[in-house]
Amino acid sequence: MTFPDTVSVADALDARDPLASFRSRFVAADDPSIVYLDGNSLGRPVRALEERMSEFVAQDWGRRLIRGWDEGWFEQPVTLGDRLGRLVLGAGPGQTAVGDSTTVCLYKLIRSALDARPGRREIVVDRGNFPTDRYVAQGIAAETGAVLRWIDPDPDTGVTVDDVRAAVGDDTAVVVLSHVAFRSGYVADVAAITEAVHAAGGLVVWDLCHSVGVLPIELDEWGVDYATGCTYKYLNGGPGSPAFLYVRRELLAAPHAVAQPIQGWMGVRDSFRMGPDYEAAEGIRRFISGTPPILAMTPMIATLDLIEEAGIAAIRRKSVELTEYAVELIDERLTWLGVRLSSPRDATRRGGHVTIDHEAFPGLIDRLWCRGILPDFRPPTGIRIGLSPLSTSFREVDTAIAAIAEELAAKIDERSA
Amino acid sequence: MTFPDTVSVADALDARDPLASFRSRFVAADDPSIVYLDGNSLGRPVRALEERMSEFVAQDWGRRLIRGWDEGWFEQPVTLGDRLGRLVLGAGPGQTAVGDSTTVCLYKLIRSALDARPGRREIVVDRGNFPTDRYVAQGIAAETGAVLRWIDPDPDTGVTVDDVRAAVGDDTAVVVLSHVAFRSGYVADVAAITEAVHAAGGLVVWDLCHSVGVLPIELDEWGVDYATGCTYKYLNGGPGSPAFLYVRRELLAAPHAVAQPIQGWMGVRDSFRMGPDYEAAEGIRRFISGTPPILAMTPMIATLDLIEEAGIAAIRRKSVELTEYAVELIDERLTWLGVRLSSPRDATRRGGHVTIDHEAFPGLIDRLWCRGILPDFRPPTGIRIGLSPLSTSFREVDTAIAAIAEELAAKIDERSA
Repeated sequence: MTFPDTVSVADALDARDPLASFRSRFVAADDPSIVYLDGNSLGRPVRALEERMSEFVAQDWGRRLIRGWDEGWFEQPVTLGDRLGRLVLGAGPGQTAVGDSTTVCLYKLIRSALDARPGRREIVVDRGNFPTDRYVAQGIAAETGAVLRWIDPDPDTGVTVDDVRAAVGDDTAVVVLSHVAFRSGYVADVAAITEAVHAAGGLVVWDLCHSVGVLPIELDEWGVDYATGCTYKYLNGGPGSPAFLYVRRELLAAPHAVAQPIQGWMGVRDSFRMGPDYEAAEGIRRFISGTPPILAMTPMIATLDLIEEAGIAAIRRKSVELTEYAVELIDERLTWLGVRLSSPRDATRRGGHVTIDHEAFPGLIDRLWCRGILPDFRPPTGIRIGLSPLSTSFREVDTAIAAIAEELAAKIDERSA
Repeated sequence: MTFPDTVSVADALDARDPLASFRSRFVAADDPSIVYLDGNSLGRPVRALEERMSEFVAQDWGRRLIRGWDEGWFEQPVTLGDRLGRLVLGAGPGQTAVGDSTTVCLYKLIRSALDARPGRREIVVDRGNFPTDRYVAQGIAAETGAVLRWIDPDPDTGVTVDDVRAAVGDDTAVVVLSHVAFRSGYVADVAAITEAVHAAGGLVVWDLCHSVGVLPIELDEWGVDYATGCTYKYLNGGPGSPAFLYVRRELLAAPHAVAQPIQGWMGVRDSFRMGPDYEAAEGIRRFISGTPPILAMTPMIATLDLIEEAGIAAIRRKSVELTEYAVELIDERLTWLGVRLSSPRDATRRGGHVTIDHEAFPGLIDRLWCRGILPDFRPPTGIRIGLSPLSTSFREVDTAIAAIAEELAAKIDERSA
């Protein structure tokens, strides 16, 4: 079972890809023994980092030492936040900060939103949301007495504005949703849903983990209240790199500026005065708690350089082409084996990854990984094909789908034998 | 004003220092233009990291990619925690995890302790504690209705067991203290104070930021309940490297295992089952929230290799010799200028740094930094001399104290002129 004719199609697509040259800027992207389709879990490192991390150790840290804090590090959570805002979030300056994990950021934002809507008890969450979003909300409900109200989205569409309208009401304090669903890749209508939540008097926290760096985002324009996301997927920040959080300017403005519960020395007006009482800094800095993870921010800076060069519009264009191509190959080679496409067919409603399901997929992933074909598995029966526009080739998509077809057919044969 | 005779004394001390050779294992330690006395704010990087960070990018991350999570990363917060436990915390396995900032860890631990002592309302904190410890406690008091009870320690002694006995009572839920005071360097009697808190039925959270890696610590033996600390000081983890937290085994044991409020997907029984409800993992893993900062843990691993080689007992011996030598030079060259030693004279009660105060010190620090002499300033009038046993030479101490004497004398002359 080979599809030799499609290789040339893939190569032709690569040949006319205006972003093709970016592939060589990532570590090991030219290594044919690795076919990487999990950049939406952990993006490949930018090649320049091999030198940059050494330089950071030898110079920025090793020779500037403590002076680094006066020479940019202290401001880096917000200067880097502003750059993220400008390049990938559609956020004006002073609303974004980098630090903590997505989980900790979610905790701060949901708690902040609850405090900002006193008298309202409900946190609205969807059952299809990523576990950490649901678990954080469950924990906050348990500790504050807030009530969880669940949305059960149609898995084929994801959370719609109608789902949200039906769920929100006078008691809604905050709604917690993902821009792109981690499993299906469904893209939520952020602007319309945010408006619906506002119409009910609530606030909204958007999880951007699966959209940041791959989809155009316009937080300011969409009127988003709070947002957070990780940076190790399409921002290639490295394993466990810090998250970011965004709080809308109006919410940060005195005299009713929102707060957050983890009051640390880096979130005050003057950290080095070391005064007796916590006095929250003005603006987004009040959402910072502890010492910011400077070294761990270095990789994402290298990625932002590439994103700035390529432009998010071109990235989205290639992302759509990659997922369209993947869907085409799935239809052609996998559907007859019983594989089901679990991502939207409509490219405008689909993020950067494509998920397929088949009852024989559990276990298949090991066979693929042994061959250096690296998609992700999502229980119970999903294979998630992540396509990072700057580092993924059409040839990789072709190779991977062919390998999935081959292994699945073999597994089905074994069973029926 | 030079003290040429003391240079030879310093050099003799360096010559007979059994740990002297470790200095060459740090970046730029041989660069005479940098006299570094702030390793207790940001430790120097281990030289091997220049290569190791590149290798991490090129191999661990760049070529193992997502497989890294199956090949050690997923367990790394606890395996590295166990190693910290064995080498520097006196903690048996299964009680320590690495991740988050010290501030976030303090938040989790204090909240956990409050939950573990229902019906008790008081959080006891000392006014000399580091700002973030106080601010976190203030925030938790505001949100939970807990009451803060302040200890005002004698700055010359720091918090004593008598101070604690006088402060705790039937309403004490948790006491939050630092092992080594960030300003004076005073060493608290952890075992005796912990016992006093337990005698009153409370729990204790120890902040180890200024002791971990430089003082022997015996958390298990001392009966400590909770502890946390940063890793960018004597563990040379780099700017903003992740903190660790420790929870005593008995507190983690079912059926009354303690919990923490930031419920994330990395703290559950089976993260990749992605089940509907948060089910806390057994053991210390339940104190983890989000995706662990793997890349950012890499530097501290290199330091632990050196600490394992040197041994914490030898490190403490050199630390005492360094601070004794600093005190001697301060007495000799600075006291007559009106400088006051703000750290304990008794080496057994003194941590790894020495603080001196003089009303003319604000502003002096800039002159010193311009000369590449890098101690720290702590308001209102303190110069803090941090001495990292593995990377600081006696010659550096000599050079720095001579420079402080020279600059101070010049400043006093300018004033009186």
